[in-house]
Amino acid sequence: MKLRDLAERLGCRLEGGGDVEIVRVAGIEHAQPGDLTFLANPRYESVLAATRASAVLLRDDAPAAPCAMLRTPDPYLAFARAVGLFAPDWRPAPGVHPMAAVAADARIGRNVSIGAFVSVGEGAAIGDNTVVFPNVTIGPGVRIGDDCVIHSNVALRERVTIGSRVILQNGVVVGGDGYGFVRRGDGTHEKIPQIASVVIEDDVELGANTTVDRPAVGETRIRSGTKIDNLVQIGHGVSVGRNVLMAAQVGIAGSTAVDDDVIFGGQVGVGGHLTIGRGSVAVGQSGVTNSLTPGAMVAGYPAIDSREWRKASVIFGRLPELKRRIEALEGQVAALTERLRARGEPSE
Amino acid sequence: MKLRDLAERLGCRLEGGGDVEIVRVAGIEHAQPGDLTFLANPRYESVLAATRASAVLLRDDAPAAPCAMLRTPDPYLAFARAVGLFAPDWRPAPGVHPMAAVAADARIGRNVSIGAFVSVGEGAAIGDNTVVFPNVTIGPGVRIGDDCVIHSNVALRERVTIGSRVILQNGVVVGGDGYGFVRRGDGTHEKIPQIASVVIEDDVELGANTTVDRPAVGETRIRSGTKIDNLVQIGHGVSVGRNVLMAAQVGIAGSTAVDDDVIFGGQVGVGGHLTIGRGSVAVGQSGVTNSLTPGAMVAGYPAIDSREWRKASVIFGRLPELKRRIEALEGQVAALTERLRARGEPSE
Amino acid sequence: MKLRDLAERLGCRLEGGGDVEIVRVAGIEHAQPGDLTFLANPRYESVLAATRASAVLLRDDAPAAPCAMLRTPDPYLAFARAVGLFAPDWRPAPGVHPMAAVAADARIGRNVSIGAFVSVGEGAAIGDNTVVFPNVTIGPGVRIGDDCVIHSNVALRERVTIGSRVILQNGVVVGGDGYGFVRRGDGTHEKIPQIASVVIEDDVELGANTTVDRPAVGETRIRSGTKIDNLVQIGHGVSVGRNVLMAAQVGIAGSTAVDDDVIFGGQVGVGGHLTIGRGSVAVGQSGVTNSLTPGAMVAGYPAIDSREWRKASVIFGRLPELKRRIEALEGQVAALTERLRARGEPSE
Repeated sequence: MKLRDLAERLGCRLEGGGDVEIVRVAGIEHAQPGDLTFLANPRYESVLAATRASAVLLRDDAPAAPCAMLRTPDPYLAFARAVGLFAPDWRPAPGVHPMAAVAADARIGRNVSIGAFVSVGEGAAIGDNTVVFPNVTIGPGVRIGDDCVIHSNVALRERVTIGSRVILQNGVVVGGDGYGFVRRGDGTHEKIPQIASVVIEDDVELGANTTVDRPAVGETRIRSGTKIDNLVQIGHGVSVGRNVLMAAQVGIAGSTAVDDDVIFGGQVGVGGHLTIGRGSVAVGQSGVTNSLTPGAMVAGYPAIDSREWRKASVIFGRLPELKRRIEALEGQVAALTERLRARGEPSE
Repeated sequence: MKLRDLAERLGCRLEGGGDVEIVRVAGIEHAQPGDLTFLANPRYESVLAATRASAVLLRDDAPAAPCAMLRTPDPYLAFARAVGLFAPDWRPAPGVHPMAAVAADARIGRNVSIGAFVSVGEGAAIGDNTVVFPNVTIGPGVRIGDDCVIHSNVALRERVTIGSRVILQNGVVVGGDGYGFVRRGDGTHEKIPQIASVVIEDDVELGANTTVDRPAVGETRIRSGTKIDNLVQIGHGVSVGRNVLMAAQVGIAGSTAVDDDVIFGGQVGVGGHLTIGRGSVAVGQSGVTNSLTPGAMVAGYPAIDSREWRKASVIFGRLPELKRRIEALEGQVAALTERLRARGEPSE
Repeated sequence: MKLRDLAERLGCRLEGGGDVEIVRVAGIEHAQPGDLTFLANPRYESVLAATRASAVLLRDDAPAAPCAMLRTPDPYLAFARAVGLFAPDWRPAPGVHPMAAVAADARIGRNVSIGAFVSVGEGAAIGDNTVVFPNVTIGPGVRIGDDCVIHSNVALRERVTIGSRVILQNGVVVGGDGYGFVRRGDGTHEKIPQIASVVIEDDVELGANTTVDRPAVGETRIRSGTKIDNLVQIGHGVSVGRNVLMAAQVGIAGSTAVDDDVIFGGQVGVGGHLTIGRGSVAVGQSGVTNSLTPGAMVAGYPAIDSREWRKASVIFGRLPELKRRIEALEGQVAALTERLRARGEPSE
């Protein structure tokens, strides 16, 4: 694609080299001639000077580069869109594969693609333009919206609801039974049937092998625009707000409510029955044991204010030294006390 | 269902409203007219006063509710059973789907349901009334008992044994190769073939995408009544006792023996070759690096007694303050020492 | 198998009992007559004295055992190979199952076995002697080398490359979309298309339900000989070196480079854009937030030198005591100061 055309499609201002042919998008350190790259982080300005890329996306106020430039207020966003322009065609042809098993009463929208070995249960409904890759199991009564991508080996259990433009990476499980048991008098546990449902709203993405459980009563819900990484556990009855970000291997215990715009780093654990306030952030590996106020930023286990935690963490490694200093003080104070006593100090 | 009939089926004592029609079970905060709810935790007594539910399960000694009441010594257990009474019919019709691949010599019990795209290997045996959902892979020589539910996309490897009334949530893997390698002189690693087996006893439940590995020799065993949540890792050669509870994302390293009635919170990690005593508890995110005595309750990493850990954790956040106090003491002690010296203190 | 023949095949020196018939390999504590066991760790010498095994693999310098002996410089390696000699025949017959869906233009090598409900996309290529178990999804353009084992329910996304002698345990996902989004002005997130690829080199093993993400640009690569356990997350653009070991539930955030011979214990988390030096080790549950120098050994969160961390951890549990000692010192110092003041100390 000519750089001039690319500039137009990305809404960028072109500086030089409109006839350059761009064949790929690449990171700034690996870019080659023919590549478009981007500068979003000023730390990479020095790298840019030596880039071999043919063109670069960069801010209006960034210094000039040694190649053609596409000026834009948000180079990272323009980069994201440029990648999409070079994406290979991935969409399978519409139609139901002859080796799929689709229930007679399932409703399949227009332009839907259903791959081999996909099972679609009774009463399920799949919206227009949705793609279902091979080996996906869609339970009875499941509802899937328009323009979704359901990657291979996903399992959608009975009666779960998936919105539109939802992307489910491979191996996702939505609607597995929540972990709900009652202890009997003899120490065994009785299963509480988990029969309520799960709702995944529009524009949500769930990462590979992530699991979202269904509850006994009420619902589990992930609101629109939320993006969840791989191997995450969403417990039964959890409510996740809009535009939430959760990195890989996060776990949220049952009945917790996570408000909009929250960010969880990787491997964060969140206890059950908590309220996580809007826009709060938990640093990777934090263990959140109490509810968080809106805008809170926490770290550690139990999670505390992240600045307090950082200061304390620095001192943690110096605990042996602090202990020695306490011991030294004890020795000095004992010696001082003895000196005063030896000099005829009247007893108290 | 009439409340009177519900009371009888749940073995509860009815107070008022026997003719009320109950259509659903719901949590106390979301219950609507037509719903049965429950009060198990006294903290919710105030909520109960405002409930819109038509009836409530509650203890004999709980204060009266503004709706019909079902009195019972264990409202949570009665709730669990009530949910079951309202569960939609989920059981697929018995029979083998025409698009399943069942080995000619596999033995399939009575009233078994095998879904589409299920592969059953040579010599496998499936007991009566067991349901196998679509896209499950059952390896050669696998034995599954009666009344099991194997949800979609489960993988059961060659020769593993599954008891009766076992529930495997979607994406479970039983019998994957344990992580066993021997370092060669050149720094590469030789695989130790993992050819021994895994036994999952009766009444066990494994959560979605949980993995249970097979060892090279001996066996991996999960004893009856144990309930394991999603995304849990059970290493090769691990032995898990009866009625154990493990929350999501727990990991148990190889050859560890977990005794009966143990409880692990979410994301707990347990080292290899340890013995975890009966009834011990590890709080969420603990890292258990040593064996635990029966009844131990631990937290932190490395895990220590949970009360000690809690006390220490409170002080952790105050480490910067403690450090300042040590510095102040050092200044004061130096000043005192100097004063004594200045006043003609004889040298020691 | 006669012990004499076993000695020859394992390259061990036989001491006594060449005619003994060996039927199984077993751990030293569970071995029965007919079993071959091994002694690699001197701690088990006392157990050996009471073994019921018919023969034991042990070092040249180990004390004599009460049964036949196979002397070898590396008993654990010989044990690994002995297990292989007794492994049941597991290999399915070559051929493509009639209920597989293989694209017309896919290239399938000689002696390949493709199980039921395996989908092989357009342009995919599978090398000689590779076994693909049921319910595996192989996307278009995927390349798989020779002598691989792809266990059931694995998902290989479009265009990923798998080397030779690679073993993928059940439920592995290679090439799922990396977690890459750009925040828009309105707080929603735009997906960066993840269209670059993943390369898994020769002799790699990935554990059950492990996920390896693809990036937007560049590649994700796992180099030869690396062994990764279950439920591990490898972020997009990560580079993992040769002969690396990662225990279960490790998570590596995007764009991090892990050099050769690194070892990560279970549940370790590693931040993004870091460099992990050759041969470094992170103890289980560590949170690695900074790059590691070659040979570093770290623990804790944030991860620090593991010896420093161990010393500090011991003191952590004594924080309440240290706090009391500080308080006592403060009392004593105040009293000393008061005594000096009371004795006519001139004011400063």
